[in-house]
Amino acid sequence: MTKTMSKINQLLDTLNQHGFEPAQIKTDPDSLNHWGKDWTKHFDPNASVIIFPKSTEQVQTIVQACNDLSLIITPSGGRTGLSAGAVASNGEVVISLDKMNRIINYYPADRMVHLQAGVITKTLQDFAESHDLYYPVDFASAGSSQIGGNISTNAGGIKVIRYGMTRHWVLGLTVVTGKGDVLHLNNGMTKNATGYDLRQLFIGAEGTLGIVTEAQIRLERQPKNLSVMVLGVPEFAHIMQILSAFQAKMDLTAFEFFDDVAVSKLLATGHVQKPFETDAPFYALLEFEAPYEPMMDMAMAIFSECMEQGWIIDGVMSQSIAQAQELWKLREYISETISVFTPYKNDVSVLICHVPDFIADIEQIVSNNYPDFEICWFGHIGDGNLHLNILKPDDLSKDEFFEKCKTVNHHVFSTVKKYHGSISAEHGVGMTKKPYLNYTRTDEEIGYLKAIKQVFDPNGIMNKGKIFD
Amino acid sequence: MTKTMSKINQLLDTLNQHGFEPAQIKTDPDSLNHWGKDWTKHFDPNASVIIFPKSTEQVQTIVQACNDLSLIITPSGGRTGLSAGAVASNGEVVISLDKMNRIINYYPADRMVHLQAGVITKTLQDFAESHDLYYPVDFASAGSSQIGGNISTNAGGIKVIRYGMTRHWVLGLTVVTGKGDVLHLNNGMTKNATGYDLRQLFIGAEGTLGIVTEAQIRLERQPKNLSVMVLGVPEFAHIMQILSAFQAKMDLTAFEFFDDVAVSKLLATGHVQKPFETDAPFYALLEFEAPYEPMMDMAMAIFSECMEQGWIIDGVMSQSIAQAQELWKLREYISETISVFTPYKNDVSVLICHVPDFIADIEQIVSNNYPDFEICWFGHIGDGNLHLNILKPDDLSKDEFFEKCKTVNHHVFSTVKKYHGSISAEHGVGMTKKPYLNYTRTDEEIGYLKAIKQVFDPNGIMNKGKIFD
Repeated sequence: MTKTMSKINQLLDTLNQHGFEPAQIKTDPDSLNHWGKDWTKHFDPNASVIIFPKSTEQVQTIVQACNDLSLIITPSGGRTGLSAGAVASNGEVVISLDKMNRIINYYPADRMVHLQAGVITKTLQDFAESHDLYYPVDFASAGSSQIGGNISTNAGGIKVIRYGMTRHWVLGLTVVTGKGDVLHLNNGMTKNATGYDLRQLFIGAEGTLGIVTEAQIRLERQPKNLSVMVLGVPEFAHIMQILSAFQAKMDLTAFEFFDDVAVSKLLATGHVQKPFETDAPFYALLEFEAPYEPMMDMAMAIFSECMEQGWIIDGVMSQSIAQAQELWKLREYISETISVFTPYKNDVSVLICHVPDFIADIEQIVSNNYPDFEICWFGHIGDGNLHLNILKPDDLSKDEFFEKCKTVNHHVFSTVKKYHGSISAEHGVGMTKKPYLNYTRTDEEIGYLKAIKQVFDPNGIMNKGKIFD
Repeated sequence: MTKTMSKINQLLDTLNQHGFEPAQIKTDPDSLNHWGKDWTKHFDPNASVIIFPKSTEQVQTIVQACNDLSLIITPSGGRTGLSAGAVASNGEVVISLDKMNRIINYYPADRMVHLQAGVITKTLQDFAESHDLYYPVDFASAGSSQIGGNISTNAGGIKVIRYGMTRHWVLGLTVVTGKGDVLHLNNGMTKNATGYDLRQLFIGAEGTLGIVTEAQIRLERQPKNLSVMVLGVPEFAHIMQILSAFQAKMDLTAFEFFDDVAVSKLLATGHVQKPFETDAPFYALLEFEAPYEPMMDMAMAIFSECMEQGWIIDGVMSQSIAQAQELWKLREYISETISVFTPYKNDVSVLICHVPDFIADIEQIVSNNYPDFEICWFGHIGDGNLHLNILKPDDLSKDEFFEKCKTVNHHVFSTVKKYHGSISAEHGVGMTKKPYLNYTRTDEEIGYLKAIKQVFDPNGIMNKGKIFD
């Protein structure tokens, strides 16, 4: 029996003494594999045990025992992460929040839900809807991602331009720190000026400071009569001018962009219709509330002004909910569509004003060094978040392609650094981007991050090896 | 020469060597008194020197020198604080941001301003307006408070229900930490998922971790056609029902409350007109955008529904900007009006759903223990922030009154604790509320706060004695 196995057995004894049921612990190979990884594929899962606590107290028991035994913990939510933040590849104890999926309380006057961290995003969205309210953080994996995971990566998605990131909706957190303390942070209040807001540290910490076990989440009024426009744009720079023109007069709920490469691949699948006859090199998708006729008129007036300026060459506006959904497919189906081209993906962020130059720089670098590579761009341009996708040429093997892409990384992140951007806009650092963290955070900053980790997790047992070493 | 004086002289020598001009340093008694305090009066100012740096580098020079000499620093902004967070009462070196009042850059596509921390709130509001934009954090001291101070207390004010606290508008910070490092935090990005968001720690830290020297602030579209309603409400609980009814269908930009005590004092001054004939024990003031006719109709329909329910007994809606401003006076003039009654003031926060019980509890406690005390309530009810004001009876001396109020503190904060609220909603802890911090933050939490302070300010020179000892 290895040393780790012996410690795991001691852990299981402790849990047994504390009333954990057998069904809350899994050590079979299928389970270790299933709960030991997220949506990334670069690291092989190698968990020692999967534990399914049902309460904050049970999480605390596990964390305290792991401290005593020097066992490393990997917190695990919906495992939809894209940076290997929830991959257990070094014999970790995985704490899955799957059984902590209860909505604890609802506060109508505060428009607030108190829930366990394992509640699935879609469940919260549906709960909000059942009370005529709205939870606006939305993205492709909403059907399986968990709120605790969203909080730990400060998930963004498609409505950030209007509603902000997950951070904006977290009114309170219950956490178990790496030291094993239970903290109730901020208790659901909007206003609280009593010292450092520790809640904010746990948002986006990728489980390296402790485990989020419960949250108090604010809900919002449901949007009314969402209308969608898709616009054909002749030059990339005009995308920003269109954004400014609309934002000056309206509240946009989304402003997405994609290029003709994306559209041509989409049309080839036959699942999506061409939005209009004219071909355009770039496309913008706008969404806004238009419950009153004059708001539609306003949108049409801005559209006409942009046409006159030559910023738009063609466009379409939804006339029904069904048509709005159809137009959204143009953006939403891109990821799945290009996945057959084994893309090298990167999720980066720069100021909106730097986006045109940033894209031009990357295009230049790729065409100089890899003339046979095809680039597909899309992103949440309204908040400076670009998804860069380089498609694998047919004549290159997967291994050769990924080998070349490693050198592309350096170019991409150097360009991000040049524009003072971020190497990860919304996917997090995890293990995938750990080697590149110093492109956009200084050594001093990383020093402070490590010192803060030391405060909450002095034995370094919480998700060790994620974000930084 | 005392030891401190000798160290101050060494500091001044160092600054001289680093090119500080004589006009950047003040040691005359009037200046020491003027820049050594904020709006509070409980602590006597006793600063050693006032320094006016012009750049982040100069702030760094001062902080590094003070570390070498073990001199305590008190950062100073517009000195409008209400919790003695910027009072230098122990021979501190005051760093005033008064000369760091430059708008550095404006990014139209990002709707962002990069500015030095000494820019006055009103200057930023005016700058935004000159670009057809809006900076929505607004409160009584906007004409003299500085952005750095707003950030360090996470200032709130009257528009939080729609626009959130200062935190929501800070896209990036430049800080000098207590250790003397310069950090550029978040660089103005909306999306950045690369490790702990240190920016959030400095927001609301009251200058105890370091000094905010520059900030990148997001601006917003200007609100259009703001309309104001003032409503007479027969029972306090109906205030919450009215809030829910309006929030279900409209975006409110403000929802304020005040009681008949406040209104009677206001009317007695002759500066404010009675909003309507009917007397009411409670009043609500709502504000919302109504650029289109159907939105006014919607507001009127909700108003009628609330009347039918018996939640409103009378009301008035503004028909012009001038009338809206007139109605706002009912809320805005309260503080000044009651100041002649030497009020005991407290700024607390509880969940909105707990507000009615909280108010009833406090009323009960005061009437049981101090039957001759008159209470005046007002507050930003839309975010659970109450301002409690106990007015001094005529026959009690100031000293006797404040002595009695000290014992009221315990009752108030115990009641806040009972409802899991906050002893300071928006004014901060500073020195005024330091003795009460443990009513709403646990010993564990305070332990973590102190450990974080240690990370950024290992020698404990930054605003020592504020928030906690």
